[in-house]
Amino acid sequence: MDLPPVIDLACIRSLYASGEWTPATLIGSLRARTDAADPAIYIHRATEDKLNAEIAALVARAPTPNSLPLWGIPCAIKDNIDVAGMPTTAACPEFSHLPQADASVVARLRAAGAIIMGKTNLDQFATGLNGTRSPYGAPRSVFNPDYISGGSSSGSAVAVAAGLVCFALGTDTAGSGRVPAALNNIVGIKPTPGLLSTSGIVPACRSLDCASIFALSVADGVEIRRLIEGFDPADPWSFKATPSPIQATDLRVGVLAPADREFFGDTESARLYDAAIANMDGTVVEIDFAPFRATAALLYEGPWVAERQAAFESLDLPMDCVDPAVAQIFAHGSNVSATDLFRGIYALAKLKRRTEREWTRFDVMLLPTAPTTYRVEDMLARPIELNSRLGIYTNFFNLLGLCGIAVPSGFRADGLPFGVTLAAQSFQDDVLAPLADRLHRMGQSGAGVERTARVRVYEQPSASPATLDLAVVGAHLSGMPLNHELTSVGAVLKTKAKTTGDYRLYVLPDTSPPKPGLIHDPAFEGTGIEIEIWSLGPEAFGRFVERIPAPLGIGKVSLAGGGQVSCFLCEANALRTAEEITPLGGWRAYMASLAEKGAGMSHASVSRPPEG
Amino acid sequence: MDLPPVIDLACIRSLYASGEWTPATLIGSLRARTDAADPAIYIHRATEDKLNAEIAALVARAPTPNSLPLWGIPCAIKDNIDVAGMPTTAACPEFSHLPQADASVVARLRAAGAIIMGKTNLDQFATGLNGTRSPYGAPRSVFNPDYISGGSSSGSAVAVAAGLVCFALGTDTAGSGRVPAALNNIVGIKPTPGLLSTSGIVPACRSLDCASIFALSVADGVEIRRLIEGFDPADPWSFKATPSPIQATDLRVGVLAPADREFFGDTESARLYDAAIANMDGTVVEIDFAPFRATAALLYEGPWVAERQAAFESLDLPMDCVDPAVAQIFAHGSNVSATDLFRGIYALAKLKRRTEREWTRFDVMLLPTAPTTYRVEDMLARPIELNSRLGIYTNFFNLLGLCGIAVPSGFRADGLPFGVTLAAQSFQDDVLAPLADRLHRMGQSGAGVERTARVRVYEQPSASPATLDLAVVGAHLSGMPLNHELTSVGAVLKTKAKTTGDYRLYVLPDTSPPKPGLIHDPAFEGTGIEIEIWSLGPEAFGRFVERIPAPLGIGKVSLAGGGQVSCFLCEANALRTAEEITPLGGWRAYMASLAEKGAGMSHASVSRPPEG
Repeated sequence: MDLPPVIDLACIRSLYASGEWTPATLIGSLRARTDAADPAIYIHRATEDKLNAEIAALVARAPTPNSLPLWGIPCAIKDNIDVAGMPTTAACPEFSHLPQADASVVARLRAAGAIIMGKTNLDQFATGLNGTRSPYGAPRSVFNPDYISGGSSSGSAVAVAAGLVCFALGTDTAGSGRVPAALNNIVGIKPTPGLLSTSGIVPACRSLDCASIFALSVADGVEIRRLIEGFDPADPWSFKATPSPIQATDLRVGVLAPADREFFGDTESARLYDAAIANMDGTVVEIDFAPFRATAALLYEGPWVAERQAAFESLDLPMDCVDPAVAQIFAHGSNVSATDLFRGIYALAKLKRRTEREWTRFDVMLLPTAPTTYRVEDMLARPIELNSRLGIYTNFFNLLGLCGIAVPSGFRADGLPFGVTLAAQSFQDDVLAPLADRLHRMGQSGAGVERTARVRVYEQPSASPATLDLAVVGAHLSGMPLNHELTSVGAVLKTKAKTTGDYRLYVLPDTSPPKPGLIHDPAFEGTGIEIEIWSLGPEAFGRFVERIPAPLGIGKVSLAGGGQVSCFLCEANALRTAEEITPLGGWRAYMASLAEKGAGMSHASVSRPPEG
Repeated sequence: MDLPPVIDLACIRSLYASGEWTPATLIGSLRARTDAADPAIYIHRATEDKLNAEIAALVARAPTPNSLPLWGIPCAIKDNIDVAGMPTTAACPEFSHLPQADASVVARLRAAGAIIMGKTNLDQFATGLNGTRSPYGAPRSVFNPDYISGGSSSGSAVAVAAGLVCFALGTDTAGSGRVPAALNNIVGIKPTPGLLSTSGIVPACRSLDCASIFALSVADGVEIRRLIEGFDPADPWSFKATPSPIQATDLRVGVLAPADREFFGDTESARLYDAAIANMDGTVVEIDFAPFRATAALLYEGPWVAERQAAFESLDLPMDCVDPAVAQIFAHGSNVSATDLFRGIYALAKLKRRTEREWTRFDVMLLPTAPTTYRVEDMLARPIELNSRLGIYTNFFNLLGLCGIAVPSGFRADGLPFGVTLAAQSFQDDVLAPLADRLHRMGQSGAGVERTARVRVYEQPSASPATLDLAVVGAHLSGMPLNHELTSVGAVLKTKAKTTGDYRLYVLPDTSPPKPGLIHDPAFEGTGIEIEIWSLGPEAFGRFVERIPAPLGIGKVSLAGGGQVSCFLCEANALRTAEEITPLGGWRAYMASLAEKGAGMSHASVSRPPEG
């Protein structure tokens, strides 16, 4: 099997599954491919020795191919995110230092089996959307080296688009995780702020920064996001989120009104935005874009500029080591008073309410990711003006807590890619995924340099079932003393069933009301134990399980008719001296036998298991 | 039936139910009582005509006594909260204006049938905790006119304590809803910030201000709170909250360590704090008070002072109309830069995490409400110093999003009251209510001026805990390959723990990623197995359990420190030929031992159990 021009998760897993490729051979090939690529992509590359050691550790820990979620998956990390053992520079050589620990998101990638190929170039201190603001060179668009890569996560986007890695981490404060995705024909996942930890990431605007993911498909990007998301107590901005519901049918799609469609003369991008709108299912609604635009103004024209300057000040570096365009932005942050900032905070709070009202009119927004792109020489000539144009559709997201997914959406006549972003409110990340995936594939743009690549289809996790099954064996059976614990939480008897023959039933000693204990004994050949399968909501199920006292618990039992079900089981040790009643076939028969024997009478044991 | 010295909800409802009293007769009696009371309590009183018109409107709308939640209940409103048709002054005559609309909380009171008796005095612009900073005079303690009433909600607290109204609204930015409750022997409900709308309230620190409730019992105060709480789109700081869980048994009560008990020489208050601690049920835990104290410093010694100044600036008033002590505080707010404020925001975010860790050690905090009290003449002589002392146990609440309930807690030998506050984390307001109620009644302080008043008993609505605990042993531990299955559903690591010594741990054969199996063996005396206890929602818990494959399941394990927890257990039969790793103490140590042995090497078993 040959290595394709771009490599997604499915591709790598099938390479490994085929047995023809190993992590060592894949990483070797990718190293060779990287040697031939734009040297501006990486600031630091992992050495061959280091990669070999990582691969050895992976195989020691999990020998079977694909036995970890990211087993042997090569990735790149933006160089403002700490990777233990590799220098962090944030594209400022004077800032270079060797972190002792992985950033939290990197640690989670490693735990899942990913292999880190190196640290990628960026607009210095993640300040920029164009990719030219780095002393390590300007990565170029993978489609035309005269053009910018977009930034600030320039190297991460280009590494994915050029097939050097399967995915890459970036960061996104004002668009850095989306603009370079659009300019290189790949997917950019910009999660809800707080969903991914920023612990171990060099701050740009600390209260707004997000980790982001570049991938070849929404399927890949969301799969990675799920592996690394979640609350991190080490990050003061990490958020304990309740995953958001998946929206139902009748999607309402907010789009820019004609008067708000600014492409700076790029008629091709304007045409491609129209085409993307036509590709969306659902009802199109025009957005009142004014409050979103006003929010964006707070970031670069308002008091939040002081946050970038505060972040830089905290690094205690001389200003003369800073890229001139970046220095010009930091300078705007001086002379902002706390009173100005409080006014900005109030203005933002009000704008948030205004945009929330807008969000009642549509479920998602479909926006151009960037309005156009520029040649490197033009960007260097007008570094502030042209850069600020790139962010007009991305700047406001994090101030408002929005999530977004940027996807490829066709090519201009000159062969440069165009992209669109689907946006949703906080923690609706999973609402976006299937929509963004469909839009990506409708755009027929392929992925990265491969315009004809088949894009892996995203599969929405089966809308979790509304009810779960729980099998009961004893005192919870219909009519038994604890049955009300099921009926009182809305549980419904689904069916009566029988276990396979390799289960034994005992009378649990000293319980009131009397209860049985069920255990699995693979060596035993009986006729099965009668159970009842009840159906109840997952929350009721959770609370029910939580209240079960030792030595009982919930495991899985095999059913005589095939399949498995959650069911009461008993710790084996608790049954060592217990009376076995397996031959009776179930608890109901045992209780009936007790009743027959009458009150107060002792009953003969059916049998006793051997001690021990 | 005579009108008692103080009038709670139950009292008024029974007066009305008796048929002997009507809103007109009650309001008339209260007007007479108010005529005889301290004239500094009210800045503006509703006229007799206006009250008669309101009563007529009430009876027209709801003729049957007690047929609305607050049918004919007299209340007072702090004069920084808008009441349509009454001037709002915030205790600054130059600011006086006639609002067109009720503040949201006032509108909700009126809808429920309450009758507003007037607007109460306050420390100007709610800046102060003592009650002397007003050109409308200084209300006095209802127990001794030489002493301060506390503030800033001075008039509201005194009106309730003196039996002029049933309840009153105040505001609380740094303690204004609690300190005057303590100094007048009544209850102060300081809800979680965002729970009650601040729309229509003159801002002190806009991002921190809370509406608060003064009442004669926790039962009354919480009943009022429930009537007026809830999301208000007109308030940018209003929060869509999920009502918080009611904690289970085994309450852990954080109290001040001896070294942190500062009463400024008031040995009587120190004694009464000890007595309150003795009155609490539950386990007493010493608080590390340092991060709370450091948070308080941000409010008055740090950048948040600029927020008060920003609020005043926005009113466009000359500084010479401001009370000299208040003006002195506003002056500190100048010359704070946005960079300083961002640093303060970061410091606060970190302190919040530090305090969250403290909150894992206790469920509620029991603090003195105020450390002591002062004579009016002493307060006027040292207005900044003595005022700041009053807030040392209240200042930090709103910056940390805490809720609190201040309750009476006995009397000093000189007849002045002492109070304590129970505090809890955001939106745990209902956790506090039954505890605060019990503490109030245990303190045998009565309510307001009536030291022998019977305090109405609070009845807790029944509810279920919001999260459940789940202990993990192997591949779900932090950093392990399946940990994402917890973090992706919002689970949070609560603590690391150890089982009792009678558990054994095995390597479950043929699993990838590798997993252990834990079983209980009552006859075994080991040193326990390391586990992690995660906290997650019951629905997520239920779905998690449902997905666990045989031979694993969830049962209960005993903890070395006492108690039991839901935890992974393994069917014993599946471990008959498994490698036992109990002596290593846990799965993490086993994985580390694998890594040490290196790639490709087979490793010797620690031991094998006898075949069985």
